[in-house]
Amino acid sequence: MTDFAALDRYVDERMPAWTDELAEFCRFRSEQGDVEGLRGAADWIASRLRRLGATVDVVELPGRPEVPRLVVGDIGDGPRTLTAVQHYDVQPSVPLDLWTTPPYEPTVRDGRLYARGATDNKGELMPRIWAVEAYLATIGPLPCRVRFLVEGEEEYGSEHLDELLDQRPGIRKVDGALIEGGGVDLSGRPEILGGVRGMAVIELVCRTIAYDAHSSAATVLPSAPVRLAQALASMYDADGFPTLPGIDAGIVPPTPAQLAICDAVPLDAVEEIRQEYGVSRLLGGLDGTDAIRAMTFAPTLNIQGLWSGFIGPGDKTITPAEAHARLDIRIVPDQDPAAIVTAMKAHLATGGFDDIEVIGEQGERAYWSKADDPILDAAARVSEAVFESPSVRYVSMPGTAPMWQVCGRDAVPTTTLGGGSADCRAHAPNENVRIDYAAKAAQLTARFLDEFARLG
Amino acid sequence: MTDFAALDRYVDERMPAWTDELAEFCRFRSEQGDVEGLRGAADWIASRLRRLGATVDVVELPGRPEVPRLVVGDIGDGPRTLTAVQHYDVQPSVPLDLWTTPPYEPTVRDGRLYARGATDNKGELMPRIWAVEAYLATIGPLPCRVRFLVEGEEEYGSEHLDELLDQRPGIRKVDGALIEGGGVDLSGRPEILGGVRGMAVIELVCRTIAYDAHSSAATVLPSAPVRLAQALASMYDADGFPTLPGIDAGIVPPTPAQLAICDAVPLDAVEEIRQEYGVSRLLGGLDGTDAIRAMTFAPTLNIQGLWSGFIGPGDKTITPAEAHARLDIRIVPDQDPAAIVTAMKAHLATGGFDDIEVIGEQGERAYWSKADDPILDAAARVSEAVFESPSVRYVSMPGTAPMWQVCGRDAVPTTTLGGGSADCRAHAPNENVRIDYAAKAAQLTARFLDEFARLG
Repeated sequence: MTDFAALDRYVDERMPAWTDELAEFCRFRSEQGDVEGLRGAADWIASRLRRLGATVDVVELPGRPEVPRLVVGDIGDGPRTLTAVQHYDVQPSVPLDLWTTPPYEPTVRDGRLYARGATDNKGELMPRIWAVEAYLATIGPLPCRVRFLVEGEEEYGSEHLDELLDQRPGIRKVDGALIEGGGVDLSGRPEILGGVRGMAVIELVCRTIAYDAHSSAATVLPSAPVRLAQALASMYDADGFPTLPGIDAGIVPPTPAQLAICDAVPLDAVEEIRQEYGVSRLLGGLDGTDAIRAMTFAPTLNIQGLWSGFIGPGDKTITPAEAHARLDIRIVPDQDPAAIVTAMKAHLATGGFDDIEVIGEQGERAYWSKADDPILDAAARVSEAVFESPSVRYVSMPGTAPMWQVCGRDAVPTTTLGGGSADCRAHAPNENVRIDYAAKAAQLTARFLDEFARLG
Repeated sequence: MTDFAALDRYVDERMPAWTDELAEFCRFRSEQGDVEGLRGAADWIASRLRRLGATVDVVELPGRPEVPRLVVGDIGDGPRTLTAVQHYDVQPSVPLDLWTTPPYEPTVRDGRLYARGATDNKGELMPRIWAVEAYLATIGPLPCRVRFLVEGEEEYGSEHLDELLDQRPGIRKVDGALIEGGGVDLSGRPEILGGVRGMAVIELVCRTIAYDAHSSAATVLPSAPVRLAQALASMYDADGFPTLPGIDAGIVPPTPAQLAICDAVPLDAVEEIRQEYGVSRLLGGLDGTDAIRAMTFAPTLNIQGLWSGFIGPGDKTITPAEAHARLDIRIVPDQDPAAIVTAMKAHLATGGFDDIEVIGEQGERAYWSKADDPILDAAARVSEAVFESPSVRYVSMPGTAPMWQVCGRDAVPTTTLGGGSADCRAHAPNENVRIDYAAKAAQLTARFLDEFARLG
C-alpha cells in the first residue's frame, strides 16, 4: 500500500504556484470561433504536458486548419492505459455584465479562483496533471500509462473528435477513461457518475413576411414570434415536460441495477438543486427519487435561446419578419441525435408548422458504463478517502461529454473523478473553482492511478 | 379660386434644395434616449420654423430637462386654426446590417431619399413647411392660422405630450388637425384616413431560476422560455388571431357610415399588402372586405420583440433564467390602454402564469373623426387634384399618433394629408421617401389651406 502522506504535502505546498498556473491557462479566451484564444490554449497545454514529461502529439485534420487541434499527451508505462478526456475550449462568457470580475481576468476571492473555464474544464484538467507530477515527485514511476486527450470543441458537440482520433489508429485502445471532471455535492460528498448524456442541437427559424413590418399591420400579417411560440408550446405539457413525439425513441429501459443506483441517491441532492437555483418547486412538482430518476433517464428539450424582433430597452413597433429558437436535447443510451431532428421535423409538419425551418446543428450519443463496473468502485474509494465522506453514485451525469467517441467501440469503462463543487457556476457568469477542492482532486487522482493499475 | 400654377412651379424649382434640407434634418439620430440627436433635431426644426416666419415657442416640462421638448410654431392669421401634429423623433435604426446605406447618412437613389425618418416623420413634416413657404411666396398671406406641433416622443407613445400641451393653455383650441402625414397607395391613389389607433405597450418577464443553469438541469428545472412561449401561445388561436380575454373591452361597434367607408375600399389594397410583404395568405386567410374591416376595427396583439438566453451564432448550453416579450396592442375607440394591461394580468393569473411579470409601459387612446366630417372631403379634393387620381377613404389609419391628446377634449376633426408611399419602409431598414411625392405633398397641402379656411 502506497503511502500518500508525502504526496499530499507536496500538493499542498505547490497549490499557490499551481493556482497561478491555472489562472494563466484561464486567461486564454478559448471560446468557439476565437482562433487566437483556442490556438493559445492548445499551445499552452501542449507545452505544459511536455514539461510534465509526457510525449505530446498535436493532431490536426489534414487540410482543415480551422478545426481546433487535439492535444495528446502520453506518460507512464504498464500493462494498462487510463485516458483522461479533457478540453481546452470554454463556454461563451456572455452576458459579461453579470460577472463580478471579467471572465478572462482570473481573480482569487474567498478561496476560489473566478474565471471562465475555472472549473469547466481547465480547472478539472490541471489537477490531473498535478496528480501525475506529484506522483512522480514523491512516489516514483507511474503504475500505469496515462493518456491525456485535450480537445478544443467539447462545448460545441466535439464535432470533429471522431475524425481527429481516427488520425491515430490505436489511440482508443485503452482500459479505462476518465470523464472530463468530477464533482462534490454541497454536502461535501463526492459524486461518482458512470457515464454521460448525448446531445442534439436544433435551431428553429420561422419566417412569415419579407421584412419587419410596421406593427399596425399585425391585424392581417402572420407573426413569426407568435407562430414560433405556438410551435414551441406544442412540444410541452402544462408542467413543462417535453411531449414532442419521438423524443423517447431509442431509449433502453433502465436495468434493475441502474434503478437501484438511482434510488440510493440521498434525497438532499434534490433539495440542493432547489436551493442553488432558488426554486420552490421542480418541474411538475418532481421530488425525491422521482426527481433523481428524471435527472438520469429523461431526455431534455431545453430552449437555450429565443430571439425575434426588437430586443433590449425602449421599444420599436414592428411585426418581426423572423423568429428563432435554439434547443439542446440531452439524450440517453441508445438514442440517435439524428432521429431527434427527424422527429422535430415530423412534429412541426404534422402540427401545421411546416413553414418553420428545422436546422440540426450537431449531435453526439450518450455513453454509460455498466452499473457494476469496478472502475466506479475504485473512483468511489479514492474520493471517499480524500474527501473523508461517503460518496454518492449516479448512473450518468446529466451533462454531455464525448465519451461515446472514445469508449463506444470497445465498451471501455468510464467514470467521473475530481473535485468540482456544485456551486461552481459552470457555463454561467462567475464560474469559479474551489482551490481546496482542486488540491483534493489532485490527491485523489494520484491514488486512483494505483487503484486503476490494480484492476487489471 | 386661387391659381396654384405659380405655386406648383415654385415647389418644383425648390425641390433640389429642399431635398438637401430634408437630408440635413435626417442626419440627426433622434432616437429615443439619444439626448444629443433629439436636442439637435428640436433646435434644427425650431430654427427652420423661425426662418419660415413662424412665432416659435419651445415648450419644456418644468424641472424635467430629460423630456424631449415640444416645438410649437404659429404662422398666419384668420378665424380658423389648423394644427399639424408632427414629431422629430424616429424609430430605432437597428438592425443596421440590413440598410444599403447607413440610416443617418441620407442618400438619394432612383428618385428617393433613403434615411431613418425620411418619411416618418421628417419627410412628412417638411412638405407642410414647404407648402406654407410656397403659399407665402407665390399667393400671399395664409388664409388661416397654421400651428405646427412638433414633439420628440411620438415613436414611444407621446408619453409627455399631454403635460407639455397643458403648459400652454389654449394651445388645443383649434378647428382642425392634420395627422402626422398621409399616404398614397401603390396604385397612386391618395389615402384619406379619418383617425388613428391608440396603443398599449406591455413587457412580459418570466423568471424561473436564480441564474442561467447548465442545460443538463432542464430535466427538473422550470424553463423561462418554455413558460413564456406557453403563456404567449395561450393568447392566440390557431390562425394567429388574438384571443386574450378583454382585448375587445370598450370597443364602440362600427356605425353604418364607418362600415360603408370600409366596404368602399378597393380590394386591390389587400393584394398590395400581400405583394409588399411577400405573403400568399393573410392571417386566417382574411381577404377582401373582411381584411379591410379587420385592419380598421380589430385590435392587434403584436409581439414586437422576444428574447431569452443565448442569442446569436454558435450555441451555449444553458437553461435561461429569464425570458422577455414586448407586445404592442393597437386599440380602437373607446378602448382604455390601462384596461388592456389589467386584462393581460388577469389572463396570466387565471391561466396559471401568475409568475410572469406584466409591465405596462405606455398607453394612448385612439381618436377617430366623424365618418362624414367635411375636413375629410376637403383632404380628398386637394389630394385627388394633385395626384390626379381618385382617393380612397379609410375610417382610421392602422397606426398610432397622438391625436387623442390634441383633439380628444373638443372633438376636433382630423385627417391625414400628404404623399407618403406604401413602400416607404417606415420603421424598417431602408426607410425612404419618394421625392416626387414629397413635392406633391407640398402642393396639395397648400391647396388644403384654402379649403380648410372655407370650411368655417
